[in-house]
Amino acid sequence: MSNFKYVLKNENLQKTVIKVGETKIGEDFLLIAGPCSVEDINQVEEIAQSVKKSGANVLRGGAYKPRTSPYSFRGLGLQGLEYLRYAGQKVGLPIITEVCDTRDVETVAYYSDILQIGTRNMQNFSLLVEVGKTNRPVLLKRGIYSTIDEFLNSAEYIMNEGNQNVILCERGIRTVETEYTRNTLDLSTVALLKQITHLPVIVDPSHATGRADLIEPMCLSSVMAGCDGLEIEVHNSPDKALSDSEQQITPEEFSKMSTKIFKTVEFKKNL
Amino acid sequence: MSNFKYVLKNENLQKTVIKVGETKIGEDFLLIAGPCSVEDINQVEEIAQSVKKSGANVLRGGAYKPRTSPYSFRGLGLQGLEYLRYAGQKVGLPIITEVCDTRDVETVAYYSDILQIGTRNMQNFSLLVEVGKTNRPVLLKRGIYSTIDEFLNSAEYIMNEGNQNVILCERGIRTVETEYTRNTLDLSTVALLKQITHLPVIVDPSHATGRADLIEPMCLSSVMAGCDGLEIEVHNSPDKALSDSEQQITPEEFSKMSTKIFKTVEFKKNL
Amino acid sequence: MSNFKYVLKNENLQKTVIKVGETKIGEDFLLIAGPCSVEDINQVEEIAQSVKKSGANVLRGGAYKPRTSPYSFRGLGLQGLEYLRYAGQKVGLPIITEVCDTRDVETVAYYSDILQIGTRNMQNFSLLVEVGKTNRPVLLKRGIYSTIDEFLNSAEYIMNEGNQNVILCERGIRTVETEYTRNTLDLSTVALLKQITHLPVIVDPSHATGRADLIEPMCLSSVMAGCDGLEIEVHNSPDKALSDSEQQITPEEFSKMSTKIFKTVEFKKNL
Amino acid sequence: MSNFKYVLKNENLQKTVIKVGETKIGEDFLLIAGPCSVEDINQVEEIAQSVKKSGANVLRGGAYKPRTSPYSFRGLGLQGLEYLRYAGQKVGLPIITEVCDTRDVETVAYYSDILQIGTRNMQNFSLLVEVGKTNRPVLLKRGIYSTIDEFLNSAEYIMNEGNQNVILCERGIRTVETEYTRNTLDLSTVALLKQITHLPVIVDPSHATGRADLIEPMCLSSVMAGCDGLEIEVHNSPDKALSDSEQQITPEEFSKMSTKIFKTVEFKKNL
Repeated sequence: MSNFKYVLKNENLQKTVIKVGETKIGEDFLLIAGPCSVEDINQVEEIAQSVKKSGANVLRGGAYKPRTSPYSFRGLGLQGLEYLRYAGQKVGLPIITEVCDTRDVETVAYYSDILQIGTRNMQNFSLLVEVGKTNRPVLLKRGIYSTIDEFLNSAEYIMNEGNQNVILCERGIRTVETEYTRNTLDLSTVALLKQITHLPVIVDPSHATGRADLIEPMCLSSVMAGCDGLEIEVHNSPDKALSDSEQQITPEEFSKMSTKIFKTVEFKKNL
Repeated sequence: MSNFKYVLKNENLQKTVIKVGETKIGEDFLLIAGPCSVEDINQVEEIAQSVKKSGANVLRGGAYKPRTSPYSFRGLGLQGLEYLRYAGQKVGLPIITEVCDTRDVETVAYYSDILQIGTRNMQNFSLLVEVGKTNRPVLLKRGIYSTIDEFLNSAEYIMNEGNQNVILCERGIRTVETEYTRNTLDLSTVALLKQITHLPVIVDPSHATGRADLIEPMCLSSVMAGCDGLEIEVHNSPDKALSDSEQQITPEEFSKMSTKIFKTVEFKKNL
Repeated sequence: MSNFKYVLKNENLQKTVIKVGETKIGEDFLLIAGPCSVEDINQVEEIAQSVKKSGANVLRGGAYKPRTSPYSFRGLGLQGLEYLRYAGQKVGLPIITEVCDTRDVETVAYYSDILQIGTRNMQNFSLLVEVGKTNRPVLLKRGIYSTIDEFLNSAEYIMNEGNQNVILCERGIRTVETEYTRNTLDLSTVALLKQITHLPVIVDPSHATGRADLIEPMCLSSVMAGCDGLEIEVHNSPDKALSDSEQQITPEEFSKMSTKIFKTVEFKKNL
Repeated sequence: MSNFKYVLKNENLQKTVIKVGETKIGEDFLLIAGPCSVEDINQVEEIAQSVKKSGANVLRGGAYKPRTSPYSFRGLGLQGLEYLRYAGQKVGLPIITEVCDTRDVETVAYYSDILQIGTRNMQNFSLLVEVGKTNRPVLLKRGIYSTIDEFLNSAEYIMNEGNQNVILCERGIRTVETEYTRNTLDLSTVALLKQITHLPVIVDPSHATGRADLIEPMCLSSVMAGCDGLEIEVHNSPDKALSDSEQQITPEEFSKMSTKIFKTVEFKKNL
C-alpha cells in the first residue's frame, strides 16, 4: 500500500459527507442520471424532467467527450455546458459534467456543480492538480486498467491541493471478457473502498457493462456491495444517441429501475 | 458467439432444475458451505453441524487439492472423501468435492453427490468428457482467465456426453488488481449468464476476493445480480487452516451471514 | 518468489542439457517443426521430409488436440501417434506430441520422444505428476495467463517426481490485444528465465501470434532474447488445415525462415 | 479495425522519414538515451557526453514527470528544460522530453526537438490535438493497457491536426506478470505495426521490463522484430536516481550495449 495522507479512514474522519444541492452525498443515496452526451436543448431538458421525477438528485451530460477516434462526435463544448445548466436549473437539479483539459477547468467549474474526471484522465496529473484547486466536488472515475492503489493515489493528488470533496466512482475495468460485456464491473473494489476510505464511493453500471439489459441487476448489486450512489445514462431515444447508444436506457426504464433501487437502499439500511 | 447445442435457453427449456437431496437447484436457493480442505474427521463433522443449522443445503470440502506449489498441502485424498461423506450423512447434507483426474472420476462420483470441476481444470477436456459420462450433477467453475464463450463451451463438453445437470460457478477472474483483492468477482457475467443460459448459476465469493471481510457484501451483491446460489468456505479456526486461511470465515460469522442472505433472497423475489 | 528446490540455477547446475536423438537441447539449437494436427499419413510424411531438409531436428504433430469447442476436430488419437512415429522414423527425426490425460501418459511416452504439456494443462497437476514419473523429456508450455512463478512451480511438480528433463516453452499470453494478434509473445520472460533457471527455454511463435506473417520476425527476436529453440507449425497447405490454419506456414516459407534463424543463432554466438 | 485516414500504409506512402538533427528517423537507426529525470546540470551534461560517444543520436531527459503518487519527485519543470537543452547543444544532440499539459505545449515545443507523449497520456485527446498543431515531431508512447487500435487512433488524432511526424513507441503493457518484470514488452505489436503503418516504430525496453539486466536482450530482440529505434534510460549512478532507479543503466553499460545494437542493426540489414 502506498503512503497516503488523506484518503484513508482515520480516528477523526470515518465518513466524508459532501453537500450538493439538497443532497448530502455519503448520507443520502446519490442518483445521477442523464444522457451520455448533451445533444440539444430539448433532449437534455426532456430527460432532466423525467429523471427528476424518478428521484434522480443530480443531472449528468457530456459536453467535452473523450472519444477513441478523432472522427467520432466529440461533444458540443461550451454550448453543451449552457444547455446542461439551463436544463438543471429549470428542473431544479444540480449538474455534473466531465472536464478533460486543464484550460477548461475554470469554465467547467463555473457552470457545473460537480466536476467529473473520466476514466482516461484518472492519471492526468496536471488535471487532477487543477481540479484540486477549485472548490467544486470532484467525481473521480477509476481508470479502465488501474489498481486500487493507483486510484487512491489519484484521489490523493486532488486532496493534496486542498479539495477534500472527492467522490470515487467504479466504472468497470478491462479484463479477458470483451465479447459479451464491454468491461467488467468490479464490485469487490467497491466493498473494499468502503472499508478503507472515508470518501463516498459510487458506481457507473452503464459504462461498466455496455449493455442496457444488465444495468438493473448491476445497480441492485452495487447497492448491496455498499455503494453510496449510482450514475446511470438515460436517453430519450437510445438508438439515435450520438454516443454509447447500446448502454443507455429510456426514461421509462429508468423510472421503474429507480423505484427498485430506492427500495433496495431501504432494505439494506434495515438488514 | 460460438455454436452451442445445449447451454443456451430455447423455446423448450428456460430453466434447468437439478434435484440434490431435498434441494431443487435452480428453484431453491443453493447454499454450499464447508472447509476449503477436509483436514480431519472432527473438523469436518463440527463444521457440517454448524453450517447445516445455519441453513446450508450442501456440504463442501476438498480431498484432492490442486495447489500451485507441489510442496503445499494437497489434501487427504480417499481418506478425505470418507470423512466428508461420513459428516454429510451424519448431519443429513449432500456433499460436493472436487475431482482433478480422469482416473478418480468413478471414485469421486461414488462418494460425492455433486462433482466439482475447479478453475484450473475448466479446460481439462478429458476430465469434462469423463464427468459428462456420469449421472452426477457437475459444478463447473469458471477458469481464472476464461471468457464467457470458453466457459459455456466447457459446459457444452459435459452436456455433449449426455449429462445435462451442469451448474455454472463464477469464482473471480484475474485482473489488474492483485494487491488488495486476490481476484475480481465478475458479477456482470452472472447477470448475463442468467439471461442466456438455462443452467443454474452460482457464485463463490471466497476465492473471488480472498478476504473474509468482503464475503458478506459480495454474497448479498451476488443475490441481487440474480445468482441461484453461493459456495462459501467455512472453517472452525480459519487461522489454522491448511489452505486458504485468509478467506475462510467461522461458523458464527456464517450463521449471521446466512440470515442476511436468505432475507435478501426473499427481498429480491418480492421486488 | 516461491520456494523452489529444482528449477533455479545453483552452484552445481548452471545449464541442463537434454539429449534427444542427435540433438543436445540446451547446447544445440532446437528446431521443432510440423503440423498443428496429424491429419493423415501422407501429410505428416511429406511435411517431415521437408522440415528435416530445412534443418528441423524434432518433428511435431498433434494427435490428442485440446479444443475450446467439443465440436472442433479433436485429433486422430492413437492413429495419429502411429502416423507421427512412422513419419519420424522414416525421415530420421525424433518426435514430440501433446499428452492431455493421465491415462494416456504411458501410451504417449511409448510412442513419443518428448512429451508436450499444453498451455491449458500447465496447472493440471495430476498430469504433471504422471509425466514426472516417466523417463521422457517434457516440454512444458506456459499457461495462457500464468505468472512466471506459477510456470516455474509447474516445472517443479515434474522435477519433484524425479524427471529432471524439463524444457520450458513461452507461447504467448492473453493480454489486452486480441484483435490484431491472437496472444502476446512475452520475450522478456524468455530473457528472464534464461537468467534464473538452468532449464532450456524455447519459444512457440505460431500460437503466440496466430498470424503466419509475424512468425519470422518473432523467431529472430526470440533468438536474440536468448532462447534455446523454437517450435513452429508447418503445414503443406495451411488453408486446408483442420486446426490453426491462419498461423501455419508452408514448407517453402519454413525453409527460407530456418536459414535466417540459423544465421541469427550464429550471429548471436559471436556477438 | 477502425476507420483510419492517415496512419496506414497506402500506395503513395510506404514509409515516413522524419529528419531530426542529422538523423533521418525511419531510415537511420534512432538511438535515444539519457536519464529518466533531469536532476541537475552536471548530471545531464555528463550523461549527454557519454551517450553521444556511444552513438546515441537524441538525448532524452524528463522535466515534467507524471508520477503515481503526488509525493514522488515530479521533475524540475522549466529549469529541467533549460538544463536539457543546454546539455544537448553542448554535445551536439537534439533533445526529446515529455509534455503532460496542454498549457505547456508551446514552451516544451520551444525547447525540445521532439515532443514525447507518455503512456498515461496516450488518450489525453486535448493534449494530442495540441501537439498535432505544432511543427515538432511527436513520439507517442503506447498506453499501458491500450489495444493496437486505440494506439493507432491516438496517432490519428495528432495527424488529423496536420502534424504528420509521429513516431510510435512500444513501452510494455500491463499483464499477468508483475512480480518478476514490471511490464511485458509486446514485440509482436512492433512487427505488426511495421507491416501496417508507414510511421517509424521504436521500443523503450527500460520501462517495458523495469530491470537493468533485461535491457540488452530486449534491445537486440527489438531490432530483430523490425523496430526503427530504441529509447534507453542511462544514468551516471542509477542507485541514486530520483526516479526509476532499478531500470537505468550506466554509461559504461550503455557503451557496450550500443556496440551490439549497431552490429545487430547491420546484421539484420544484410540478412
